[in-house]
Amino acid sequence: MSHDNHPSNWHLQCPVPLTADSKRITLAHGEGGRLMRRLIREHILSPLGNSVIHTMDDAGKIPAIDGPLAMTTDSFVVSPLFFPGGDIGLLSVYGTVNDLAVSGARPLYLTLSLILEEGLPLAILDCVMQSILLAINKTGVQLIAGDTKVVPRGAADGMFINTTGIGQLIDPIPTGPSSLCVGDEILVTGPIGQHGIAVLCAREDFGMTPPPVSDSASLIRPCLLLREKLGTGLRAMRDATRGGVAAVLHEWSEASGQSITIIEKDVPVSSVVRGVCELLGLDPLHVANEGTMVIAVASCVAQQALEILRSIPETANVARIGTVVPRRHSPVTILRTLGPEQPLDDPLGAPLPRIC
Amino acid sequence: MSHDNHPSNWHLQCPVPLTADSKRITLAHGEGGRLMRRLIREHILSPLGNSVIHTMDDAGKIPAIDGPLAMTTDSFVVSPLFFPGGDIGLLSVYGTVNDLAVSGARPLYLTLSLILEEGLPLAILDCVMQSILLAINKTGVQLIAGDTKVVPRGAADGMFINTTGIGQLIDPIPTGPSSLCVGDEILVTGPIGQHGIAVLCAREDFGMTPPPVSDSASLIRPCLLLREKLGTGLRAMRDATRGGVAAVLHEWSEASGQSITIIEKDVPVSSVVRGVCELLGLDPLHVANEGTMVIAVASCVAQQALEILRSIPETANVARIGTVVPRRHSPVTILRTLGPEQPLDDPLGAPLPRIC
Repeated sequence: MSHDNHPSNWHLQCPVPLTADSKRITLAHGEGGRLMRRLIREHILSPLGNSVIHTMDDAGKIPAIDGPLAMTTDSFVVSPLFFPGGDIGLLSVYGTVNDLAVSGARPLYLTLSLILEEGLPLAILDCVMQSILLAINKTGVQLIAGDTKVVPRGAADGMFINTTGIGQLIDPIPTGPSSLCVGDEILVTGPIGQHGIAVLCAREDFGMTPPPVSDSASLIRPCLLLREKLGTGLRAMRDATRGGVAAVLHEWSEASGQSITIIEKDVPVSSVVRGVCELLGLDPLHVANEGTMVIAVASCVAQQALEILRSIPETANVARIGTVVPRRHSPVTILRTLGPEQPLDDPLGAPLPRIC
Repeated sequence: MSHDNHPSNWHLQCPVPLTADSKRITLAHGEGGRLMRRLIREHILSPLGNSVIHTMDDAGKIPAIDGPLAMTTDSFVVSPLFFPGGDIGLLSVYGTVNDLAVSGARPLYLTLSLILEEGLPLAILDCVMQSILLAINKTGVQLIAGDTKVVPRGAADGMFINTTGIGQLIDPIPTGPSSLCVGDEILVTGPIGQHGIAVLCAREDFGMTPPPVSDSASLIRPCLLLREKLGTGLRAMRDATRGGVAAVLHEWSEASGQSITIIEKDVPVSSVVRGVCELLGLDPLHVANEGTMVIAVASCVAQQALEILRSIPETANVARIGTVVPRRHSPVTILRTLGPEQPLDDPLGAPLPRIC
């Protein structure tokens, strides 16, 4: 299965058996002719069924949408393609949908663009399309346009996916990180670092039992409920992907001109993530999440926010981890469990490449 | 410059001198931390200046748009990155904008997602961003959201770009290929096959003087004028990218249930494209274009369409190449210059990988 001199490891964790006889992507699948139309019809459009409202024209048509829109784009290059708790297909839908949801939008339409490496088994494409269908059904978005490119063996690593989404901005829209006030409280919606550590363990084939599991999930429901119930008490929401919770807190500190202080013992971390992080010298606060967000709320609604999030299974383990404080020398500080309060680093470059 | 065991050839045709000391993309540029924010600020946002209306939030906000929308997505994996007449930056804007324009939309907003290979010289990224800026200014679209990923050396070939665009559908919208009627005329807006042959000659380093030049260009203006002046006489427009003119004619035949017949001697082909095609056994009708479109019009407005297109520099060499005829056994036929009328193949897979 492996490519010589090539970092490919898309066979890792693949849920289907692959053999030398497995049907594979060829360059001809990408060249606009009959083979490409058949690939798209049989392996992309047909599994998606009714969730696609557009087929093979140059552009998909969308009915009029009332009011302002949000639009976001994300390319997914995760390696390996499959990992406990998710795969590149789930990620590519949830990631873009979550970016819309935390910005205060109702996600509506998604485009799907695939870059496939020559030699990729069609069975892997089929598995990924099943995950995309699952995530589309869970989030209620519709696919409006697509694109498929094939590059020669060695010119890409298995499969990259871009999704771009648009959503309808609906009041109340969170006022955003620049509106953070001294006294506001900082919450995280679940144990942190699950996604980055799950991908790392799958990639390095650590063989842990049970393996750490990604938190990959849709955040539409908690975002919607928080906006409805908290109004302007909800300042900002952000899914803590690359750079982890620490990167979000640093951006919010910069945007608001205030500092943020958090308490290490209050930050939820699973024992398996804690163990791997200690072994490798990583800080879970720098590790990526894919279904866990950071939220800033006015202190008067903090208790209400906790109750709302505890009532939803995907955010039931929410925790209050810190507070916005007047600007000091360090933009973000942490009260360590053992030791004094100290600055929390903004990672220069995070330690885990290709986690999304 | 070359990577061992790797098909990379992004140094070919690069307009800037590169040395072993050139600053390069590192994995840390992709990890959500300070280095990534600096890369985005200094090498992506700053060159784009005012054409970006969104910076580093999770999603860009778009004011309300009246009426229905068109949305399209395209990933660009062209190799080499630079070629006579264009580069991956120009392509990535014009390609998506043209897909919106031919569908009857006014292109408004674009997202830009970059996948960069570790080791890519920053000077190459800078050149590509300059081209993106040029194309954005020419087309009048605005960048609304972006994403940047870095993959390890060998996991991608230099640089891939996804752009996704939305536009406002404005009446009159072409009725589309299903509305083609017997007697309708088929036009192409200029010499065909320029783009595919330009990229092929650059990639294989054929060293022709002068080299074939890509037709990469925006089609907004001719699409707008044709729609305004021809009304329902304008049946369909399509930029003839992968699969070339032949693929468009086959799709239109299938959509309309009619056949299409064209006359080889009326199809404009430059002498350099004809020469390279004869040498390599390619049919220019199967070779990709990036600024040349196929148009179907009612015969009563064909002359008017020709006059409109001749008045615009980018489509001045428009030609009438064929006619819609009642359905026969072959969906598309061609009257060869030497020889009888014969079926025109729908390419199984086109002969030129990675031309866009």
